[in-house]
Amino acid sequence: MSSNSSKETMHVVSEAAHNDLITAAFIARGFNEQEGRAAAEIAAVATTHGNRTHNALKALHLDELLGSAIGNCTPGADLIKLPKRFAAAEVWDGNKKLGQLVAKEAFNRAIELADEFGIGMVSVDNAWHYLWGSGYAIDAAKRGYIAYTNCTSTLAEVVPFMGKFPTLGTNPHTWAFPTTDTLGFPICIDWATSTVSMGRVQQLKREGGTLPPESAVDAQGKPTTDPAEAVSLLPFGRHKGYGLSLVNELTAAYIGGSLPTIRGTQSSDAQEKTTSSFFFQIIHPEAVSGGAFANGRSQDANVQAVIDDILGHGNAHCLLPGQLEAEAAKKTAEAGGLLFSCAELEELNAIAAELKLPPLTSL
Amino acid sequence: MSSNSSKETMHVVSEAAHNDLITAAFIARGFNEQEGRAAAEIAAVATTHGNRTHNALKALHLDELLGSAIGNCTPGADLIKLPKRFAAAEVWDGNKKLGQLVAKEAFNRAIELADEFGIGMVSVDNAWHYLWGSGYAIDAAKRGYIAYTNCTSTLAEVVPFMGKFPTLGTNPHTWAFPTTDTLGFPICIDWATSTVSMGRVQQLKREGGTLPPESAVDAQGKPTTDPAEAVSLLPFGRHKGYGLSLVNELTAAYIGGSLPTIRGTQSSDAQEKTTSSFFFQIIHPEAVSGGAFANGRSQDANVQAVIDDILGHGNAHCLLPGQLEAEAAKKTAEAGGLLFSCAELEELNAIAAELKLPPLTSL
Repeated sequence: MSSNSSKETMHVVSEAAHNDLITAAFIARGFNEQEGRAAAEIAAVATTHGNRTHNALKALHLDELLGSAIGNCTPGADLIKLPKRFAAAEVWDGNKKLGQLVAKEAFNRAIELADEFGIGMVSVDNAWHYLWGSGYAIDAAKRGYIAYTNCTSTLAEVVPFMGKFPTLGTNPHTWAFPTTDTLGFPICIDWATSTVSMGRVQQLKREGGTLPPESAVDAQGKPTTDPAEAVSLLPFGRHKGYGLSLVNELTAAYIGGSLPTIRGTQSSDAQEKTTSSFFFQIIHPEAVSGGAFANGRSQDANVQAVIDDILGHGNAHCLLPGQLEAEAAKKTAEAGGLLFSCAELEELNAIAAELKLPPLTSL
Repeated sequence: MSSNSSKETMHVVSEAAHNDLITAAFIARGFNEQEGRAAAEIAAVATTHGNRTHNALKALHLDELLGSAIGNCTPGADLIKLPKRFAAAEVWDGNKKLGQLVAKEAFNRAIELADEFGIGMVSVDNAWHYLWGSGYAIDAAKRGYIAYTNCTSTLAEVVPFMGKFPTLGTNPHTWAFPTTDTLGFPICIDWATSTVSMGRVQQLKREGGTLPPESAVDAQGKPTTDPAEAVSLLPFGRHKGYGLSLVNELTAAYIGGSLPTIRGTQSSDAQEKTTSSFFFQIIHPEAVSGGAFANGRSQDANVQAVIDDILGHGNAHCLLPGQLEAEAAKKTAEAGGLLFSCAELEELNAIAAELKLPPLTSL
């Protein structure tokens, strides 16, 4: 069966079969079953939510280009929880373990800390890419918590505001709020601090098109809208996006991250580290509640009233962050499987062929 | 004495005399001595750091237009600390008390919580404007902590992305990092989530000029670059700034904030609240440290190395957030007093005349 709800024909693929294939692909790369499952599951979550850039193919490409293939990720590594110095905070040595497992476990632990202390945080040194922050944050929000995560991106592709050379990651931030009971889905704000991604630059270069103003620079560090000339990205919103990107770099630097320009590379300097850092934070909504909501509303009803006010007054066409993802998840559920384009399915089946496994079929 | 280091002639004014005058002005408006001192001091901190928009004049205008004059701020009110339900979190009923005192005390308490738990937060319901987030965050960072605050702005002046009507505050975020020992000043990232402020629109209207693209809309909700046509603001960075503004609205809604479109007004609906909300968070830098910094560096030296890398590679001309403020503070110290323009000094002395106090003089 194929679904044709958007412009593109999409194939419906069994989630279990997808997960088995991706798990096998990770196992073939040296990872253990648990790691392979975690990688497959978060990729399925991204695809379920309509995310076409952070799917299983991306996870495998990342590992191949920048991860275990060059020593920035270690299959089967043990996550090391460092001795606890503060009650509501933990610091882990990620030990280059696959990020998908680490992120899931870190948010779970931060939830336990928030249950006890109202707020909890887990910082991770020596981390390897967790693929899609929204996946973990949406899960935490569905369980009733206010979730936040940031990380340093693998490569330094972004030029600081007023600068010439890329020394910052695309450094994303992700916030999610427990609005499922009221809106039907968690509000989830998740984006990179660059205006566009390097993937988008490459896509526009292939397909023809112009970059938004102030989104990229050429080899001389001059702003360009020509994707063929673009070699590095610019932060969104000038000094504001630059500041947001610095938040990740500084948080990482306090955790244990090293020089951004050698991150994700095979550095010749064995004394420097090339790993990313993760930061996770959970707030229990009762720990911020003053309990005095207008008109006798409950906390959830108050959040709903505020959202209704924001989207009232002629703003009904505004989208809430997380809404498109929730609509995609609904379509996925209705289709009864993960939705992939022909090109994506072909690429997944090239992996199946390589592993001598049966191809994924369109249900 | 007057200082002429920028294009404009600036008068050097005794900080003590400034603080006495502003304290007297607040007392004349019904506030007590402690409140007046807190208001004067944070205004002096803003002026010290070269901030021309959030000075004592703004503090008094705010109170007159939107604060105690219309019931959104109560002079002499008691701050109420609600019963504690979680160890690392406190929630206070601001009880419409002057925000300058509340913000200072909230960050102090969050520091105590972070000392104990690694991270601490204080949420404030029924809050009234704290003037300048940087002032408190810079202070916390100078004391060695990672500080963060957000709040809902008094008025809804910002149109949601894809919307037509202003239903969001300019909702600022402030982050500060304890980089004084390495850089000589704390990195402080502090801005509104609108591209420009309404004050900037009015200034461009007076002086002639064009607004940046996608920064404001006209009465019909259509984007305009003509300051004379602009009636509402747009978030910076399209959906990204919109998401950041929602973070403040949602945090406030979970705390106890009410409908954004009636915030800061004299609402006809007595059941709805018109107050803002504050959120403060402190992280102890040791509570995120993995202790394994490259090349045997200390945590501070690691942060320095990361910053050096970001500003290396031809990026030496980039500014760090907080740098201009630190340079202004140095100039203030060299001048031996607060620097005010002729127009600002005149306005301050109109207040002195009204209070039958001697005018501030140029040292």
